[in-house]
Amino acid sequence: ILSKRIVVLSGDGIGPEVCGEAVRVLKAVGDRFGHEFTFDYQLMGACAIDATGSPLPEETLAACRQADAVLLGAIGDPKYDNDPTAKVRPEQGLLGLRKSLGLYANIRPITAYDQLLEHSPLKAERIQGADILIFRELTGGMYFGEKGRSEDRAWAYDHCTYHRDEIVRIAHRAFKAAETRRHKLTLVDKANVLETSRLWRETVQSIAPEYPSVALDYLFVDNAAMQIILNPRQFDVILTENMFGDIISDEASVIAGSLGLLPSASVGDGAALFEPIHGSYPQAKGKGIANPIATILSAAMLLDHFDLQEEADCVRDAVQHALDQEVVTPELNSSTLYSTEQVGNFIAYSV
Amino acid sequence: ILSKRIVVLSGDGIGPEVCGEAVRVLKAVGDRFGHEFTFDYQLMGACAIDATGSPLPEETLAACRQADAVLLGAIGDPKYDNDPTAKVRPEQGLLGLRKSLGLYANIRPITAYDQLLEHSPLKAERIQGADILIFRELTGGMYFGEKGRSEDRAWAYDHCTYHRDEIVRIAHRAFKAAETRRHKLTLVDKANVLETSRLWRETVQSIAPEYPSVALDYLFVDNAAMQIILNPRQFDVILTENMFGDIISDEASVIAGSLGLLPSASVGDGAALFEPIHGSYPQAKGKGIANPIATILSAAMLLDHFDLQEEADCVRDAVQHALDQEVVTPELNSSTLYSTEQVGNFIAYSV
Ligand SMILES: CC(C)[C@H](C(=O)O)[C@@H](O)C(=O)O
Ligand SMILES: CC(C)[C@H](C(=O)O)[C@@H](O)C(=O)O
Repeated sequence: ILSKRIVVLSGDGIGPEVCGEAVRVLKAVGDRFGHEFTFDYQLMGACAIDATGSPLPEETLAACRQADAVLLGAIGDPKYDNDPTAKVRPEQGLLGLRKSLGLYANIRPITAYDQLLEHSPLKAERIQGADILIFRELTGGMYFGEKGRSEDRAWAYDHCTYHRDEIVRIAHRAFKAAETRRHKLTLVDKANVLETSRLWRETVQSIAPEYPSVALDYLFVDNAAMQIILNPRQFDVILTENMFGDIISDEASVIAGSLGLLPSASVGDGAALFEPIHGSYPQAKGKGIANPIATILSAAMLLDHFDLQEEADCVRDAVQHALDQEVVTPELNSSTLYSTEQVGNFIAYSV
Repeated sequence: ILSKRIVVLSGDGIGPEVCGEAVRVLKAVGDRFGHEFTFDYQLMGACAIDATGSPLPEETLAACRQADAVLLGAIGDPKYDNDPTAKVRPEQGLLGLRKSLGLYANIRPITAYDQLLEHSPLKAERIQGADILIFRELTGGMYFGEKGRSEDRAWAYDHCTYHRDEIVRIAHRAFKAAETRRHKLTLVDKANVLETSRLWRETVQSIAPEYPSVALDYLFVDNAAMQIILNPRQFDVILTENMFGDIISDEASVIAGSLGLLPSASVGDGAALFEPIHGSYPQAKGKGIANPIATILSAAMLLDHFDLQEEADCVRDAVQHALDQEVVTPELNSSTLYSTEQVGNFIAYSV
């Protein structure tokens, strides 16, 4: 009997609803396969600011450090977004957690589901069969560089820095993933303008000989942003720095037909965190219309991380079954009107 | 009789071919309307490096400073792209020119042409009627911040800085453009993470009351990269900083169905530069397959800049006529096989 402690950070907006369904599915997996998952709920994000004044309370961080994995819903509240002077923001909780746990690689699989081709804004024949794995660096770059203002507040600055070692460790992960897939790795950068991009390019180039079966190529980020839409099937594994990864991976989500389907894993040397790529979608909060699949598939990646391959596949099969049967939330089928909970229940039952 | 001096920087790859057709069209406009356009050809980019060692020779810069406008083809050569240690790059010429001429606003109109809906990777019903005007800041941000390496070359850095005044001047242009269009301005930033973005947001917010007829909203760049594909019709004028603008505007080009259609203007307090948004496309060099329309439409923006409204519209009508008659290069119609020159000739005749 396997026993694992999972910290759940439900967060804000629709976070608690979608986390509730992912936990339901994990419990079903535990029951069926005889594992013992315990869930420890902690505060992060706007809800943590409201309750404690801090977006990432000490207690939350301590619990995450001791956990076997962290499951996150979503964080963010519009009351903080349009106030450029706000001192404390929900996002600081997430960024602080990434940095504190050393979650340097954010991994986002993006697949065109056959059942959902019509939902994508892209023509079906362009996306059918697309299957991309994005490795986004998550603890460096502009996100964590020095930032500030001049005394008169008229100048602002954000510094982007990268050390070779930060590139090496995620590059190895990306090459290894490419070895198990279609043997292609594309580095997305802006090496014709940025010094950090030139460091990325030379570092990744220097590692490439260790992976002779993987074909490495390079795209400037502007071109990549276009190619992902023009011809997504050309990509296998994409590797990129933090800010470019943020943009490119959200953009690529259109291939899947709904943001509500896309999971992610953030990993480092120790802990690992799993979260849907969508946000907290405050307008939908409490309405029972949020799609829980992205979070449920994040839970499947969490099972992968525990080396529970059969269990993870079982969750993915259950999701496929829900898509086949069109047991989906309103944004994917506006006539059947299944709720968040009904979709979660159906998937948990199918496990 | 109006007399104007235009510096032509044909540049690299397909640059000379597409510039040749734009000049042909400008000459036809001059003949028909009785204006005297003179063309002064100068070197910039890889061709300038090859000839002089510098991507932006003094003579070129001096000629541009004295010109009434600059027409640019494209620059760049793959021999510089994958060499992260190259000291001199074609791009430095373009960046140097932008900075030297103070071309702080890059303006890119993106329209879905009815004749070409089928060419877009996006579903026709999503893009029909889309009409976006992007204002990208062009002389600040990471492009022009301090950049470099640590002594052991293991660290690299790029600094992003913005001064309020750099934001104010382009924001006024964007608001004014929105006033003549659909009265909507969207600021794209990453204010939940970057201090420079917070400066953008607070500065644009502070100007907004001067334009009471324009509705201002904000999007995080990751969300914007998604929304542009999901629902391009929601946008009217987009305003953003240099790097985000580079990515977003190339991405948005997919709406038009071909990069070969999209023009741009880069303006400042004095000189102005007009160029297609596509690159130098070295593989196509000399083959007569490059689409000259983007450069011809850039020439139309040049005529706008000279306040020659009727002339500019006349060029745009001629382009519409070519699209209607399918007198287009192979990427838009692979059965008729019109060459770059034939398309240029047809449009020049129709002026
Ligand atoms: C909420 C925000 C800080 C975050 C980011 O930019 O990394 C989000 O967009 C993401 O991609 O996880
Ligand atoms: C060639 C390159 C330096 C340039 C840029 O990044 O600005 C290009 O991509 C553009 O958009 O004009």
